[in-house]
Parts: sequence; C-alpha cells; structure tokens
Amino acid sequence: MTLPENRQFRLHARPVGLPRATDWNYVTEPARPPGPGEILVAVEYISLDPAMRGWMNEGKSYIAPVKLNDVMRALGVGRVIASQSDAFAPGDAVSAATGVQSHATIPASAATKIDPSLAPLPVYLNVLGMTGMTAYFGLLDEGKPAPGETVVVSGAAGAVGATVGQIAKIKGCHVVGIAGGPEKCAFLTSELGFDAAIDYKADNLPKALRTACPNGIDVYFDNVGGDILDAALAQINRNARIVICGAISQYNNTTPIKGPANYLSLLVNRASMKGMVVFDYADKFPAAAQDMATWMKAGTLKGREDIVNGLETFPTTLLKLFSGENFGKLVLKV
Amino acid sequence: MTLPENRQFRLHARPVGLPRATDWNYVTEPARPPGPGEILVAVEYISLDPAMRGWMNEGKSYIAPVKLNDVMRALGVGRVIASQSDAFAPGDAVSAATGVQSHATIPASAATKIDPSLAPLPVYLNVLGMTGMTAYFGLLDEGKPAPGETVVVSGAAGAVGATVGQIAKIKGCHVVGIAGGPEKCAFLTSELGFDAAIDYKADNLPKALRTACPNGIDVYFDNVGGDILDAALAQINRNARIVICGAISQYNNTTPIKGPANYLSLLVNRASMKGMVVFDYADKFPAAAQDMATWMKAGTLKGREDIVNGLETFPTTLLKLFSGENFGKLVLKV
Repeated sequence: MTLPENRQFRLHARPVGLPRATDWNYVTEPARPPGPGEILVAVEYISLDPAMRGWMNEGKSYIAPVKLNDVMRALGVGRVIASQSDAFAPGDAVSAATGVQSHATIPASAATKIDPSLAPLPVYLNVLGMTGMTAYFGLLDEGKPAPGETVVVSGAAGAVGATVGQIAKIKGCHVVGIAGGPEKCAFLTSELGFDAAIDYKADNLPKALRTACPNGIDVYFDNVGGDILDAALAQINRNARIVICGAISQYNNTTPIKGPANYLSLLVNRASMKGMVVFDYADKFPAAAQDMATWMKAGTLKGREDIVNGLETFPTTLLKLFSGENFGKLVLKV
Repeated sequence: MTLPENRQFRLHARPVGLPRATDWNYVTEPARPPGPGEILVAVEYISLDPAMRGWMNEGKSYIAPVKLNDVMRALGVGRVIASQSDAFAPGDAVSAATGVQSHATIPASAATKIDPSLAPLPVYLNVLGMTGMTAYFGLLDEGKPAPGETVVVSGAAGAVGATVGQIAKIKGCHVVGIAGGPEKCAFLTSELGFDAAIDYKADNLPKALRTACPNGIDVYFDNVGGDILDAALAQINRNARIVICGAISQYNNTTPIKGPANYLSLLVNRASMKGMVVFDYADKFPAAAQDMATWMKAGTLKGREDIVNGLETFPTTLLKLFSGENFGKLVLKV
C-alpha cells in the first residue's frame, strides 16, 4: 500500500505559562507501516483536554510527561486503514491514545473498537469516552451523592462538568453548575436540567452560591481550583465530599499555585477532599459505559461537542480550554 | 457551707492575631452553689489547647464561639466539693469542660468520674483525655495506617502529635515527627521511639523529609498547616491519607490563611485530605481509653505534661502554644 503522509504536532519546548506556537513542531512524514500486532489508524477526531497541559510539564505526575520531540499525547478516534492484527480489519472504528497526528501506528492491544452506528465518533471522546468515565467515577465513586443532596460542579459547561451535573440529576440531587457567561448558564438550566447555574464572571459567587444552595453543599466536584474552590469550601456541609478532578485556573500559572485558603473548612465540617484519576477505574469502564449509553438513549444524558476543523489549528484551538471559550467537549477534527 | 471565691478568666474582647492581656477579664466572685443535679468542682488542672484560639473567634465553626464576658471554655480536672447529684460525692475526681476558673458549678451529667489511683490527674487531660482521643481516632479511624507504612506527624512534640507517633509505632509503622528544636527532636527519637525526627527550624524540610521517608509518606497527620503541610503534600504516596487535625501556624493570622499550594498532589496521588473533630467519636471513647490505658501500663505509650503553676498566668501561659515553647501537653495548675 502507499503510505499516507502523517501530519504531527511534536512537543518542541516545555511551555512556561500558556503554551505558545513556538512550543510545537508541526512535522510531516510518511506514516509508519504497522508491524506484527499493530494497526495503522487514520485519526478523524482528537480530544483536547485540560490534562494535556500537565503532560507537557517535566516532573513526577500520575503519568510520565511527554518527552521533548515526541508526538503530543492525546486521545483520538478514527478508522483502521491497515492491520497486522487479527483483532482489527480495515474500516473498523477505534478509539485510542492516538496522539495529535493524522495517522497513528499503534499496538492493536492499545485500541478499543467502537460502534459508529450507536453514536457519532466524537461522542466516543465525550460522554462515551474518558470524559464521561471521569464524570461518572469522580461523582459516583468519590462524591457518593445521595438523593436530595446538593451537588455543585465547576467548569459546568465543560465536557466533564456537564456530564457530572446530569448524572447528579439522574441520581436525584439538587444540582448547581458554575460556568462563565450567560449563554453557558442558560444551557445548563434549560438544556441539561441543572437546578441552577451561576455565572462566575458576573455574579457575586459567595452570595450566588448561598442562594442556589439553600441547604449548603454536600458534594463539590472541582474542575477549576482557585477562588471558586475557596468559595465552595466556605459553604460545604458537615461530612461534605470534595472531588478534585482538575484545576484549570491554575495550570498555566507562572507563579505558585493558589492553595485553597479555606481548607480548614474541611476540619470544621469533617469534610474530605480527594483527588481522582480516571485510569484507576478501568476495570469498571464497561459497566459504566452501559449506564451512560442507557441514559443517553433515554434522553436524560446529553453530550455537546465543540468541534474545531483542522489538525493544523491545534496550537490555538487548545488555548480555548484555558480561556474558557470552549462550550462542551473540545474536539479537533483532523 | 461557706462558698469559696471563684477566680475566673472571662473573654473581654475577640483577639486580633495573638490574644493579648487586654482580651481577658480576671474576675473574682463567690462560687455559685450547686442546684439540683449539679456539682461544684474545685478545679485543679486546666487543659490549654490550640483549639481554644478558634473558640475565641466569632463565626460558624464546629462549636459555638465563647460569648463575650463568658468564662473562657476549657477542659479541666478537679474534685467535687459539693454535690446535689446522686452520681457524685464530695472528694470524687472528675473531668469536665470546667472553663478557665478555679471553681466550676456544672451539671453532673456533664462530668466524668476519673480514677486518680490509675494515673495522676493531669494525665486525664493528656493521653487519657481528649488529647489522647484526638490522636487515637484521628490516626486510626481517619489515617488508617497499615503496618510498614510511613506515618509523618507535625507538632510532634505537642500533646496530640507525641501520642499520634507512639500509637503509629505500636501499629508497626515507620514514624517520623516534625518538631521545633533539637531538644524536642531528641525526645521524640530517644524517649518516644520515633524512627526519625525533623527540626523544622534547622533542617531543610523537603530534603529532611526525603531522607527520613525513603518510601514516601502514606499518612500525614497535620497539626500545624502552612509550609509544613505543603512540604508533606509534595512527598505523599499514591492513596495517601492526610488528616487535618489543626493548623496552629495559621490560628493567629491577621492576613488570610495560607492554603496548601501543593494540594494538587492529592489529584496526582489519588490522595485524600480529611478534617476531624474528636467529639464525633464519643461513643467509642471507652474502648479507646481502654487501649490507651493498656499501652500506658505496657510502657509503649508515654505522656509528657508541661505544667505551669498559677491560674493567674493563663493569658501568657496560653501563648506558649503559639510560640512553640510548650513541650508536651500544656496544663495550667490552678
């Protein structure tokens, strides 16, 4: 076969603050033919996630940093175009850690077959992918919301946050989302069924939280950190659970991270703050995916993807995550 | 009977920063005779605790603030000198929330009989009292240390910290204490059997922690907050448990509290940070006290009291807690 050109974004320099164009190398080279047990995937959609910012940094984390000059790590979905594995045939749709490139040659064991007749491919990067799993396990396994409890989620119009809030509604909770701007807030309440939405850019956050959570906060699912985490800490109930899923407000800091000044509220309220990483729940993904698919079919769980065209826009499209511009799951269409 | 003079410290003003002499009123008035169901206690020893600083502040906490002009809240031990209750006779030794005063008239139901033949009275304010219970439940119920795990405790030469470390040793852990000054550190290792002690005033804390905890930190029991909490967060293991018992470095701040800048280590390590208040474990106090008494008898658990003479020294003696001057459980002898 003629090997296609593989367009790739490689990490050129470790960013200081927001990633800049000069932190990337855009490289084109022929795709590598699959060896035994490998498949070649034509990547169609690439997932852009806040966690990617952390992967660019040096130092110990829950996953090794991307090495300089390696293709940037990312999840993607696409179709097999060549296979040296019995498990996959050309034409199969798969999801995998493809990286930010148009063609990925990967071990067949690292790919998961997906069914495009059930849902469009981008949905497998959102509700039916790691994003959905993060929301599911972070909320249910760590937040442990009981019916009638109040669940607050930040970054609520983002991919994880929107799913957290909808699952909390399905579980019978009073759900409050924090997001930026009136359009996102309206979407949360009128489209996704949140009980209330707070525009952190416009509202007095402590006051708005008090109004939206008359019975205090039982579960706070945090995607943003910073002042919003502090505001939530100030209004938690006894035995509240705070799930630390991310801290997008702090990822591009060039100054030290702002720790939560109100953390002693954990003591006063015998509350817990716990970090979570989605990979830890891998053995339970199939059961969760079944729940998610059922809820999607029933219409109680909706996904929204913010799809941007063109692999070559990657450096600037990624920044939408940090400016709060994206609305729903940010996906790059190759 | 002739009623004795009751010397009392009443809260005159809410302190800003460190409590000053002018925040107290020293008042003398005749003790109030016990009414039906009440006892009059001649207080012999008063427990001085970091938590008292919080009780002086206005605002919602785990317990109501001390009202202005009320006798300052404190735990104490003493002897009944008059009783209108069948449960107590004059001469009985009791522990109770007596307040900072020489004579307390209290409901019999609020007092616990103690046995001076088992241990001297001040021990009932330390290992056999709330201090010991705080260490016991904070470490065992919240920290959940497994044998062989590394337990680090700050404020380790303080009353709670010293007990936490010894219980962790009894449970087969590698135990590291953080304290201020060579004398306290030597005490931890040579007297109390800690595996290592770090002098936060002299040592490079991150480096000293790495040396003392070659396998990382599994349980961190925090009494101090601030930079020490941050240093510990930087070296926790996966699934580590951080118990927030106090934050003495922050109690007298007139500027905002310093939140833990390294809190995202909770995410990376899937770790938890949980606050605890000893009163929540009240139904399990008797069983715990039995454990503690057994360990004391076996010599594996030692208490050390730092006893200061004279009720009238209360305003300055209390400050020893915040300057780090006290060495062991700080107790005021009436």
